[in-house]
Amino acid sequence: MESLAVTRFRATVAYDGTAYFGYQRQRDDQPTVQGELEKVLARLAQKPVTVWGAGRTDSGVHATGQVVAFDLAWNHGRVPLQKALNAQLPPDIAVRDVTETDPRFHPRFDAVGRAYEYHVVMCADGVKRPLSRWREWQVMSWLDVTAMNEAATLLRGTHDFATFGQPPHGTNTVRTVNTAVWQQQDDNLLFSISADAFLYRMVRSIVGSLVLVGKGEWTQTQFKNSFFAKERQQAGKTAPAHGLYLVSVLYE
Amino acid sequence: MESLAVTRFRATVAYDGTAYFGYQRQRDDQPTVQGELEKVLARLAQKPVTVWGAGRTDSGVHATGQVVAFDLAWNHGRVPLQKALNAQLPPDIAVRDVTETDPRFHPRFDAVGRAYEYHVVMCADGVKRPLSRWREWQVMSWLDVTAMNEAATLLRGTHDFATFGQPPHGTNTVRTVNTAVWQQQDDNLLFSISADAFLYRMVRSIVGSLVLVGKGEWTQTQFKNSFFAKERQQAGKTAPAHGLYLVSVLYE
Repeated sequence: MESLAVTRFRATVAYDGTAYFGYQRQRDDQPTVQGELEKVLARLAQKPVTVWGAGRTDSGVHATGQVVAFDLAWNHGRVPLQKALNAQLPPDIAVRDVTETDPRFHPRFDAVGRAYEYHVVMCADGVKRPLSRWREWQVMSWLDVTAMNEAATLLRGTHDFATFGQPPHGTNTVRTVNTAVWQQQDDNLLFSISADAFLYRMVRSIVGSLVLVGKGEWTQTQFKNSFFAKERQQAGKTAPAHGLYLVSVLYE
Repeated sequence: MESLAVTRFRATVAYDGTAYFGYQRQRDDQPTVQGELEKVLARLAQKPVTVWGAGRTDSGVHATGQVVAFDLAWNHGRVPLQKALNAQLPPDIAVRDVTETDPRFHPRFDAVGRAYEYHVVMCADGVKRPLSRWREWQVMSWLDVTAMNEAATLLRGTHDFATFGQPPHGTNTVRTVNTAVWQQQDDNLLFSISADAFLYRMVRSIVGSLVLVGKGEWTQTQFKNSFFAKERQQAGKTAPAHGLYLVSVLYE
């Protein structure tokens, strides 16, 4: 009997991170996005399958464009594979597309850029918004978006981001930020940030610090001094996970 | 000992309807928004308090501007009352404001207008959006918004809406619709509709029928014939509850 050749597949995955202990499989049995994907793939493959992800999103962080890869012996085409996965995945995880890819492709190591969004809702009346509670950071004050954008311009370019996060494995803390901009629609603020790569908790740490500027608790100079201090303890409070969305991963 | 005078209060309430069996208290012990409000008020009043609502939203329907009223012996001011309520309410219900009102005020009988929004997300790629699942109706196809708006213009004015809903107590089915318009932003569609009053399930029934027009399954003439038939069974399928939001109630 001929054995079916294994193909490496690449997939774009969206998820509501509320119910998960982050993307990455944990040592214990906590539910994770990777764990759910591997469970479904193991059922299809009749053996364990490892799923590599581009970004190890934290507990509560969402994604609309996480990229993953896995090896699978499958000869029914990519659209039926996507359908088979979506039919078995829980309703808070969806595979947006599947393509056959180079067997050497790795979603994390091959990525040349990542884009995140962070959602804030200004509750200047001091009342929480029930419909926002797992989707946006509810900040209990008015925020000066112009000041936040002024501070955010400092982030663009190649800089040492040591203030805003730790490197994954003691590697260096220099990253190149391409986009860092706030947009406002009524009480809703959307921060878009893209970079070659991010340090651990970097987006949430940046957002927490920019919100201090927006509240008027930090001047532009204080933000600048914090950033240029290159010391983790100089950052503002880290923004909560549930406002963060991994929106896309870029490859050559 | 002097007994504290009872005041009628009016409050605007926002909620995520996902966890509730609708606004109105049920005979059994199912969680409802009214039930949660009454539980907290009973604790403050040290006796049962009835909360009247403007709109009896169904199970899963959300609100950003539900209006309620209740009688309470309270002399600490309206802002402390709002804070006391919000401190004890579950995180999916919030009191946006509280005011003292006329002791004859009734949020439902005195209302002269209501406004609802209905959120649709077009999933033309056939893949569900995990982050939308309790917030928008995920329609698995492209929709012709121009055609939906053309059909919606028919709804404006004073008409017999018998096709789209039942009256509360066998009263008549004539209602006056002021606004009925779809707006589009990328894949997201927002339907805004306001009227003097609505029949039971009227917005969801209208949306279900307009979506048939958007899909091309109904022509303008078919929509018109359905509307003018004044027969409940001529309506399209009722749209799901989780895309519907009660946004405001109007008083003289």
